[in-house]
Amino acid sequence: MEVSVIAIGDELLIGQVVDTNSGVISREITPDGWTVRSTRAVGDNAEDIKRAITQAFEQTDVVLTTGGIGPTKDDITKQTLCDYFGGELVYDTAVEKNVLEVVAKRGLKINPLTAAQAYVPSSCSVIQNRVGTAPIMWFEKEGKVLVSMPGVPFEMKEMFTTEVFPRLKQRFQSDIAVEHRTFIVINYSESVLAGKLEKFENDLPGNIHLAYLPQPGIIRLRLTGTDTDKARLSDTLDSLSAQLDDIVGADIICKEDKTPAEILGDLLRKKALTLSTAESCTGGNIAHCITLVPGSSDYFKGSAVTYANEIKSAILNVSQADLEQHGAVSEEVVRQMAEGATATFHTDCAIATSGIAGPSGGTPDKPVGTVWMAATLGGKTVSECRRFAGNRERVINHATTIATLLLIKLLLN
Amino acid sequence: MEVSVIAIGDELLIGQVVDTNSGVISREITPDGWTVRSTRAVGDNAEDIKRAITQAFEQTDVVLTTGGIGPTKDDITKQTLCDYFGGELVYDTAVEKNVLEVVAKRGLKINPLTAAQAYVPSSCSVIQNRVGTAPIMWFEKEGKVLVSMPGVPFEMKEMFTTEVFPRLKQRFQSDIAVEHRTFIVINYSESVLAGKLEKFENDLPGNIHLAYLPQPGIIRLRLTGTDTDKARLSDTLDSLSAQLDDIVGADIICKEDKTPAEILGDLLRKKALTLSTAESCTGGNIAHCITLVPGSSDYFKGSAVTYANEIKSAILNVSQADLEQHGAVSEEVVRQMAEGATATFHTDCAIATSGIAGPSGGTPDKPVGTVWMAATLGGKTVSECRRFAGNRERVINHATTIATLLLIKLLLN
Repeated sequence: MEVSVIAIGDELLIGQVVDTNSGVISREITPDGWTVRSTRAVGDNAEDIKRAITQAFEQTDVVLTTGGIGPTKDDITKQTLCDYFGGELVYDTAVEKNVLEVVAKRGLKINPLTAAQAYVPSSCSVIQNRVGTAPIMWFEKEGKVLVSMPGVPFEMKEMFTTEVFPRLKQRFQSDIAVEHRTFIVINYSESVLAGKLEKFENDLPGNIHLAYLPQPGIIRLRLTGTDTDKARLSDTLDSLSAQLDDIVGADIICKEDKTPAEILGDLLRKKALTLSTAESCTGGNIAHCITLVPGSSDYFKGSAVTYANEIKSAILNVSQADLEQHGAVSEEVVRQMAEGATATFHTDCAIATSGIAGPSGGTPDKPVGTVWMAATLGGKTVSECRRFAGNRERVINHATTIATLLLIKLLLN
Repeated sequence: MEVSVIAIGDELLIGQVVDTNSGVISREITPDGWTVRSTRAVGDNAEDIKRAITQAFEQTDVVLTTGGIGPTKDDITKQTLCDYFGGELVYDTAVEKNVLEVVAKRGLKINPLTAAQAYVPSSCSVIQNRVGTAPIMWFEKEGKVLVSMPGVPFEMKEMFTTEVFPRLKQRFQSDIAVEHRTFIVINYSESVLAGKLEKFENDLPGNIHLAYLPQPGIIRLRLTGTDTDKARLSDTLDSLSAQLDDIVGADIICKEDKTPAEILGDLLRKKALTLSTAESCTGGNIAHCITLVPGSSDYFKGSAVTYANEIKSAILNVSQADLEQHGAVSEEVVRQMAEGATATFHTDCAIATSGIAGPSGGTPDKPVGTVWMAATLGGKTVSECRRFAGNRERVINHATTIATLLLIKLLLN
């Protein structure tokens, strides 16, 4: 089954908000064999919303909209849907009751704008929004379905996952199985990996597709297959996975779609090891990525973000002489930072970074993007220097990945 | 001038990659009075790409595409553009030369897949990609323009900003000025703020639009105006800004579109104060947000991410008795964490957090989402407990904002 997604809101078009709802919908439906055919973002403009709906229905029988249904004036989606599907806005006391409950749960009082959420098109059936005040509206027309959901990511995700998608699956049955296999590959550029996989790719059966999803420091390879026979599809993908293993197995660090921080967490939990980080240029981003993983407190003890040199000495016991002689961005310092972290935080292993994220601070010897990284485990410390391209955020993200991979490789050896 | 954006790539539709390029384009063009009319994401599918181009040209004279032009097999955009605009793929020696230079600069060798980048449609003019191997292709047809750009965010941003947009501005002149004014408002829910601004909004002139952009903890209010007379527009917006000041001035913490970390950084720099953070449940995210700001090393000294209780005592000098008596998630502990950070890092002020980000770890007394936050400045410490809704990532982000605001408010008083 294919769906189209329409995100509504001026804020999406002037770049102040990134649409993450479409991705949430995609990730939720693909394991069940559903596919997002296309996504669109349009402004709070009746003509553009109607045009987007018409074009979306030309391609798919299900259209999901997010956003544009808040209480404020710039949200005109509700009236537009009413015009499109017919009927008129009517006051719905069940919605009013739900709004009152949600508002009370937040410790707030109802006001005229929130109360106006209870007006809904007479042509829709309402799904009550348990986690917000904007009702979910389900429209049907000539066998096609449009569901209007709130734009607040947290509300959209909760209600789509628990209410909207289950009802859509009931409404439209599918007999085609879809399966994805993802492989996290390191040590390759996209084109070198594609060269190595050329024959494998040319020999793929017609119902299997290979995609390259490069990110700084890693490439996610994804095999996608479709088949009416679910078991036969799994067998085919098993066999192709084994072939991939023969070709690039040594550089595959994970066979699930996980982040480096998740892969690291799995390894640490399996080996019952504890972790700390010592971060200069990454400024806490490694710790942030690690602690985004639920349950990370099982293995993660803490991080010292040591922007100032005196703090590197005070907390991580980095030699002041080495700081003066080699500078903070040096192999000597980053190794001592990693080793100092294991001592300070009493952990089995540690990751450390020291570099120049830019845009200023570069020198001819150490230009912007130069980052020293180290990992230490059981008395063995490894280090690596890289010069990353791109802006400050990209340097931080790239260094975060490569430093995390340093420790993953130590743990895998 | 209006443009449409089309992001191409299967990875966008299965939710593995979020399209950030559209936002970069929007933010780059709006200050110059250009507008993104709509954005679309489509898969690596010739029919869908052609349909998206046709529909986009129905709305705007300029269409920008990102992605789908890498060296691997799943990228079929180039051939599709060739079919759409006519001509055939030809080998371009200037592109070959550029690819060789870029590959050499990266310390890599050319391979057949990278070399294939030199094939371009005969119907386009090429803009050489200084920072990657995929050439930028500029097509013209019946007074309309399509520019195909790479999907790698760093390459797209660099080339769009320095080459593509300047050429578009030269090609299409506009005589309508557009101006935005953004206000960062705290202490309000969206609907309460909208109620307070109802009369202001109803009285707005027809060429001025007000938008509410809520995020956890803050609401960005944006006035957007258009006028053929740039000076008149500025005067109108000045006057409206003054009215906004009269109504909600006390809760406007900034009159530019800045993040809380940027607002905090401006205040610290202006007052020549230094900052550290002590983070438990936010796991380094406050430090990460602060250090994303270029130049933050001027005022930020470091952070102690203290996931383990013994580390809270060892590094931040938190009383073990208080940890045992009140628990890590308590007012006593979070205040000592903030004060301990100023001592350990020798800073003028500090921010601290301790809470339960979930999904596990909650108790009846302290359910998931409970977070104690503190800020300290010049011997004065303030603290606040909140119970945030949503998943782990949302709790972390919300706590990051509210804790940062605590210190901002101290600095503004």
